[in-house]
Amino acid sequence: MSNMVTHSATLQPVLDKIDATLDDSIARLQTLLNIPSISTNPDYKDDVRRCAEHVTADLLSIGLKASTHDTIGHPMVVATDDSAGPDAPRVLYYGHYDVQPVEPLDEWNTPPFDATIVEGKNGKRIVARGAADDKGQLMTFIEAIRAWKQVHGSLPVRVVILLEGEEESGSESLVPFLTEHKKDLIADTCIVCDTGMWDESTPAITSRLRGLVYIEATLHGPSHDLHSGGYGGAVVNPANALTKILAQLHDEDGRVQIDGFYDDVVEVSAEQVAQWNSLGDADALTLESSGAKATFGEKGYSTLERLWSRPTCDINGLRAGYIGQGAKTVIGATATSKISCRLVANQQPEQIKNALFAFLEERTPNGCHWDLKNFGVAPAIAVPTESPWLSAASDALTNIFPNPAVLIGTGGSIPVVGEFQEILGVDTVMVGFSLDDDLIHAPNEKFELSCFHRGILSHAAILEAYASIHV
Amino acid sequence: MSNMVTHSATLQPVLDKIDATLDDSIARLQTLLNIPSISTNPDYKDDVRRCAEHVTADLLSIGLKASTHDTIGHPMVVATDDSAGPDAPRVLYYGHYDVQPVEPLDEWNTPPFDATIVEGKNGKRIVARGAADDKGQLMTFIEAIRAWKQVHGSLPVRVVILLEGEEESGSESLVPFLTEHKKDLIADTCIVCDTGMWDESTPAITSRLRGLVYIEATLHGPSHDLHSGGYGGAVVNPANALTKILAQLHDEDGRVQIDGFYDDVVEVSAEQVAQWNSLGDADALTLESSGAKATFGEKGYSTLERLWSRPTCDINGLRAGYIGQGAKTVIGATATSKISCRLVANQQPEQIKNALFAFLEERTPNGCHWDLKNFGVAPAIAVPTESPWLSAASDALTNIFPNPAVLIGTGGSIPVVGEFQEILGVDTVMVGFSLDDDLIHAPNEKFELSCFHRGILSHAAILEAYASIHV
Repeated sequence: MSNMVTHSATLQPVLDKIDATLDDSIARLQTLLNIPSISTNPDYKDDVRRCAEHVTADLLSIGLKASTHDTIGHPMVVATDDSAGPDAPRVLYYGHYDVQPVEPLDEWNTPPFDATIVEGKNGKRIVARGAADDKGQLMTFIEAIRAWKQVHGSLPVRVVILLEGEEESGSESLVPFLTEHKKDLIADTCIVCDTGMWDESTPAITSRLRGLVYIEATLHGPSHDLHSGGYGGAVVNPANALTKILAQLHDEDGRVQIDGFYDDVVEVSAEQVAQWNSLGDADALTLESSGAKATFGEKGYSTLERLWSRPTCDINGLRAGYIGQGAKTVIGATATSKISCRLVANQQPEQIKNALFAFLEERTPNGCHWDLKNFGVAPAIAVPTESPWLSAASDALTNIFPNPAVLIGTGGSIPVVGEFQEILGVDTVMVGFSLDDDLIHAPNEKFELSCFHRGILSHAAILEAYASIHV
Repeated sequence: MSNMVTHSATLQPVLDKIDATLDDSIARLQTLLNIPSISTNPDYKDDVRRCAEHVTADLLSIGLKASTHDTIGHPMVVATDDSAGPDAPRVLYYGHYDVQPVEPLDEWNTPPFDATIVEGKNGKRIVARGAADDKGQLMTFIEAIRAWKQVHGSLPVRVVILLEGEEESGSESLVPFLTEHKKDLIADTCIVCDTGMWDESTPAITSRLRGLVYIEATLHGPSHDLHSGGYGGAVVNPANALTKILAQLHDEDGRVQIDGFYDDVVEVSAEQVAQWNSLGDADALTLESSGAKATFGEKGYSTLERLWSRPTCDINGLRAGYIGQGAKTVIGATATSKISCRLVANQQPEQIKNALFAFLEERTPNGCHWDLKNFGVAPAIAVPTESPWLSAASDALTNIFPNPAVLIGTGGSIPVVGEFQEILGVDTVMVGFSLDDDLIHAPNEKFELSCFHRGILSHAAILEAYASIHV
């Protein structure tokens, strides 16, 4: 499947091995996907641990040193390989083996934890929760390392793999773990695989990530649910009040009304905007992959600018009153919203979180009170785009895919990139193979087998390219 | 327990029988309450039928002719007794044996379908879903009829009992059933038991009911749930949009902004308002029974005026995005609200429902669409207050309770009262024994045993009082 470029005598047999054993790689991915490692729901705690232990066993079977580490939350998996010798560059690979919840379950065409191969417009794809986010992605570098070890016995670079089990649930153990294990994790460069391509033929390196504030806000009114006939019009209905408050989060131009929200936002350069807008028809891609009928957002910015360089505020969950089938004439005692802000470079997450809390508190209806929970904050990231690692990775990708690699941003957040920079002092190259229509966080999440395959080939090419960088 | 009034030689032994067999009456109520007859949820269809058959068997055991009638929805129970002879007045009793859903289940102190006697501030109470709404209430007249039959062999009036199983789910079978069985149901007067007292010592007859419009509105945006990082700021978030739309339902003075909403509302007379406001401290009662810290509602009206004579609009349910534990960075494909309006005399329910639909449609965000469902409408009711039936019932209540009966309104809706007037041509006297703090439609619904007991005594007294009315 690798393209017409001539590869080195070292790399070519690894690529051939990957091509020849692709079915085995897919089978291993299926086994991994079938473990329901939902980290945000305590009911799945044992499954998350089982998943960590499964991956650890797999890494041991490749010939890496690997172990499952207990944390205050879900376990960390760490694996190392020093077969390249002490002078070789050391590369830290990061992925996460935990997954998002699967609700609404009835919208899945196949069970979320029974990974299924189906035909799609780009050939075969694998459908399961975690297919693209992030089990399918982390398996691209694990399978590349496996193939390289099988062909050559040793790796061309020193490797340390860190796999987290709390990426989807706030990563509470990450900073303590990085701090405690700094000596073992330190590396010359880092690869984070939790990102996407521009399209199925065009690989990408991601240089901008948005940050995140995520809170839950419950408005409490009466002490218990009330009959809407007996009390409607007499006391506050928290559901009515909540909608009135949340409606004020944006003005008519889609600008967020939280106090000081835009104070630290840096406008990106016209050149940067022009480069992004030259990538292709982002509106068409967005509409196609989202199934939305129209784009929407802050006035005065293109879709890629809004996604990659503008902060947002979104309601991620609403719950109040009766939500079952049919009618119930109830005034719910409480109304709950989950709210997140995506942040851009320079915004201070703690400050935005506090301003959001204040926005809600200032609007508390008479006689009501809030229960406000913080589910975690992360700053936005911009990584250096002029590094030998990024150039080498970009060349490696270009040698595997039909189109050359491009530099993009992403609207999502990968807090670990900031933690690596801060705690380990290492810059990250973000290389991933998911597509916009992979339905991550949604029912019927999938990963294209062509992306999986080329992702493995790419990581083999990156291993070779990194080996020649002098550190 | 009956008070110091001297009762007739006909009534007194019935009252004595009721006092002596109260424990049996309570046991029968418990058996009835333990059947989970939730009509709005199709999962309980068989339980609803089982409940109908249980009540039918009980009515047969008293010596009434009784049967369970199939409908397009849940069954109707009809029972008759003609032992009073052809010249006696015929009284139609209405109640409903179905109950509200029980969510949130974890807020119940005892299982909702394991009726439990506990101590409360007014003595013993029975806690279960349906305790006050409406199983405990319909058992007041059934137990009175049982005692009368046991003591005297025959009843002093002709009786027809109609028990519905769809009151909490839109009553779709009611009108067809009344129309088809008009001949069998026709009566000189009707008693509906689904109402309350002013307080635990003061019985009440309800003369004003609010009407109801209940809809479900789901706003559809993207075709599937989206990652809030990958799409936040690029396409419409239906949860954001829904709150922005619902926030416009009321202005800053609490007035409903649906087009033409107040056009047909008739202001009540100053005398009427004065009578209501003389009943007692409604604000204190409302705050105590709701557990709210402040009253709230349309500016310029007292709490009783707002409840009994002003229309409202309330959000009864909100659901969007992720509502489980923890965080999920999702933009939900849809956002759903259940919305009801309480109507007052003269408002046209169909017109209000259409205006509410139009209110939503006019605000549809670009690229989105609504799924709008109508869960049923009912007009407000004002019954004649100058009738011999109402006077006789009022006197009977006054002879049983410590305080005289008062005339009140209610914020709730009892559509059947309108149907009886329209289809059977019969006016209703609304006599019920629930209290504001009975937590109907909420967790830990209860019925005071003193209310249950005096309710049974009252219905015996009403049977005698009605027997002397010339028809």
